[in-house]
Amino acid sequence: MKYGLIGSSGRMGLEIQSVFRNHMLSLTLDKEKEWLDSSPDVIVDFSSCAVTPRTIELCRENHSGLVIGTTALSGEQLGMLRELGKTVSVVQSFNFSMGINILKMILREYSTYLENWDMEMTESHHIMKKDAPSGTAILLKDATGRDCSISSLRLGGIPGDHSVLFANEGEVIEFTHRALSRRVFALGALKAAEFVSQRKRGFYSFEEVLSCELKK
Amino acid sequence: MKYGLIGSSGRMGLEIQSVFRNHMLSLTLDKEKEWLDSSPDVIVDFSSCAVTPRTIELCRENHSGLVIGTTALSGEQLGMLRELGKTVSVVQSFNFSMGINILKMILREYSTYLENWDMEMTESHHIMKKDAPSGTAILLKDATGRDCSISSLRLGGIPGDHSVLFANEGEVIEFTHRALSRRVFALGALKAAEFVSQRKRGFYSFEEVLSCELKK
Amino acid sequence: MKYGLIGSSGRMGLEIQSVFRNHMLSLTLDKEKEWLDSSPDVIVDFSSCAVTPRTIELCRENHSGLVIGTTALSGEQLGMLRELGKTVSVVQSFNFSMGINILKMILREYSTYLENWDMEMTESHHIMKKDAPSGTAILLKDATGRDCSISSLRLGGIPGDHSVLFANEGEVIEFTHRALSRRVFALGALKAAEFVSQRKRGFYSFEEVLSCELKK
Amino acid sequence: MKYGLIGSSGRMGLEIQSVFRNHMLSLTLDKEKEWLDSSPDVIVDFSSCAVTPRTIELCRENHSGLVIGTTALSGEQLGMLRELGKTVSVVQSFNFSMGINILKMILREYSTYLENWDMEMTESHHIMKKDAPSGTAILLKDATGRDCSISSLRLGGIPGDHSVLFANEGEVIEFTHRALSRRVFALGALKAAEFVSQRKRGFYSFEEVLSCELKK
Repeated sequence: MKYGLIGSSGRMGLEIQSVFRNHMLSLTLDKEKEWLDSSPDVIVDFSSCAVTPRTIELCRENHSGLVIGTTALSGEQLGMLRELGKTVSVVQSFNFSMGINILKMILREYSTYLENWDMEMTESHHIMKKDAPSGTAILLKDATGRDCSISSLRLGGIPGDHSVLFANEGEVIEFTHRALSRRVFALGALKAAEFVSQRKRGFYSFEEVLSCELKK
Repeated sequence: MKYGLIGSSGRMGLEIQSVFRNHMLSLTLDKEKEWLDSSPDVIVDFSSCAVTPRTIELCRENHSGLVIGTTALSGEQLGMLRELGKTVSVVQSFNFSMGINILKMILREYSTYLENWDMEMTESHHIMKKDAPSGTAILLKDATGRDCSISSLRLGGIPGDHSVLFANEGEVIEFTHRALSRRVFALGALKAAEFVSQRKRGFYSFEEVLSCELKK
Repeated sequence: MKYGLIGSSGRMGLEIQSVFRNHMLSLTLDKEKEWLDSSPDVIVDFSSCAVTPRTIELCRENHSGLVIGTTALSGEQLGMLRELGKTVSVVQSFNFSMGINILKMILREYSTYLENWDMEMTESHHIMKKDAPSGTAILLKDATGRDCSISSLRLGGIPGDHSVLFANEGEVIEFTHRALSRRVFALGALKAAEFVSQRKRGFYSFEEVLSCELKK
Repeated sequence: MKYGLIGSSGRMGLEIQSVFRNHMLSLTLDKEKEWLDSSPDVIVDFSSCAVTPRTIELCRENHSGLVIGTTALSGEQLGMLRELGKTVSVVQSFNFSMGINILKMILREYSTYLENWDMEMTESHHIMKKDAPSGTAILLKDATGRDCSISSLRLGGIPGDHSVLFANEGEVIEFTHRALSRRVFALGALKAAEFVSQRKRGFYSFEEVLSCELKK
């Protein structure tokens, strides 16, 4: 598989290169420069939403599939990605870990059982993280179909913790996810890239990538 | 509803009397004495497995339904309870909280998604608790269909915490339940007693009581 | 010991009466009425800051000591309490649990070791709690001599959890306190009342009550 | 500073090389081979206790100081290290993180306040960890001067979590440390190596390295 990488020199970019080491890097886009060796099968973008329009152009120019994990995307940008999915294969998610996506499924299915319980959420990330609440926290909240406050903690080098709490007068249930390193997201990106490279077109969630894998 | 109470003077017995205060206590059995005013519709037993055979006799003598939360029951005793279910209505569970039973359902359904992850469990209870691991921990482990070690902590006045952890190289998912007081179990017993009082016979789990309620 | 009780019919009031059952209740003040049998040795107040001025008057009128755990006191009210301490013995704290006061001592002493670490706090309480952040969270933050954000969660019947977190790039330290029931605060109030009944005058913290006990 | 590295090709060895990149590696010892360029100022060993005798010899031969974080050392081996400290400077600890050493100081000082509370400990590590309980858990337990059970969890890629819990009837205090990556231990090793390179002889704990730093 030939792959392109947006933000190749950032922390997440280096992690992706390490995990994709058996594949060939053929395009990069960083703040200062664009580099193209040959058209990639799939472009991987975990960088900033400021660059998303250029990423979409690159996909069209090279007829490359797309794996995009950028957070804080606008509604308009999401619309552009859906549109792109009519031409090439696109996987878009705010979180590429298997665990978060399993939690998402559980919350979507079981929140009705807990509708009389109070709900709260917390998320903790490293001090460098700019957006709050995290895209993942929003994804989990949306899965419950309810609204609640999200407490965001920013400290040290925490890769990413998320907790969804439910409580009534007599008991508390807590669902917690903890990323041990950024590597887990790069591994999810690889899974998604392999999925994309086998499909002509379509707009997919990471959950669909996982479901497909579980059927194998 | 007229109810009987096994172990009426213990901590859990007093909690049950408080929660059942709108119903009529008509039979008690404690270490030293048995007291009968009139045949109860349902007998509630959260005491010790040493007394289970006598509880079953009392149900037969009075044609009373049974709600039994006793832990550490033997296979033989469970068989006797199933047999009793052919004559009267019986609800048996190692845990009468709604939260634990929701976790049980989640673990039963989603453990296959996590079968490549390592699994561990912990449970913490007050220092007076005699059995370890707790009946609830066993119930949750059984729901996963897997085996794993269960770490039992005994300290202070903790009413009952349970955690089921799954981890792979890059992420951890934790499902936690925390009872805030014994009252939650007494509330579950009341729900089960009302269920029993409306059924002629049958052997039911607390999960079936909850499912029935959710359909309403 | 004869004691007076402000807010005798509230949840905390009932808990105090249960813990003080070997002592004689001789004065009460509730929303609708004041009742006086004879002058108490000590007045206990865990109610609202709206009633604090009347509590202080009652102490002066009856020459009673005071144990006050009211939160959200104004600076002016704290001044009035210090003034009262010149006449009678007063113990004032935002938290009467032994555990919180030990944490306070630890944070005061060890925060300098952690001054290059990021700091965050969370506190979780039952849904009925009106003030946020909790008085206890403020007390713990003040002990560190630093400022940080405090995330307040309100859900179900949680008696009171507090966490102080420190993290740098590579590690996280968390100090957590969890109240298992309101009873723990009533037990602290009794300890403080006994302390007050043995002193003529002075304005004391609950920490001083504990230090005194440890020396015994 | 010139340093030697025992187990240079293992996970921890690579982490140390990354953190010591501004210093000169001049000796290595791995399973298959020994390599010597010139006598190092200090030798760093976070490998297995099987190799400790050879590490001690290398220190004597090269008159090098030693930083040793090997766990599961025997009493005899500890004696040999103390003996070595009469000739060169040695820092020995089962844990080279700043956080664990702060917890150790807190537990040593405050455990007397908690002597009437029940105590329990848990530690969680990656599935590859061989020894249980961890050397760090033992170090923390020893700091309390009490005995208690230690629950060891082994799952996924957890770098290392430790919790010390105290509880009485009404409250729970928990002290938790979580390593975010192995890097934190390598950073501690660097601090200790700089300490060693400035001292002629002596047998030191990592706590002494930290105290010395705080005085600066």
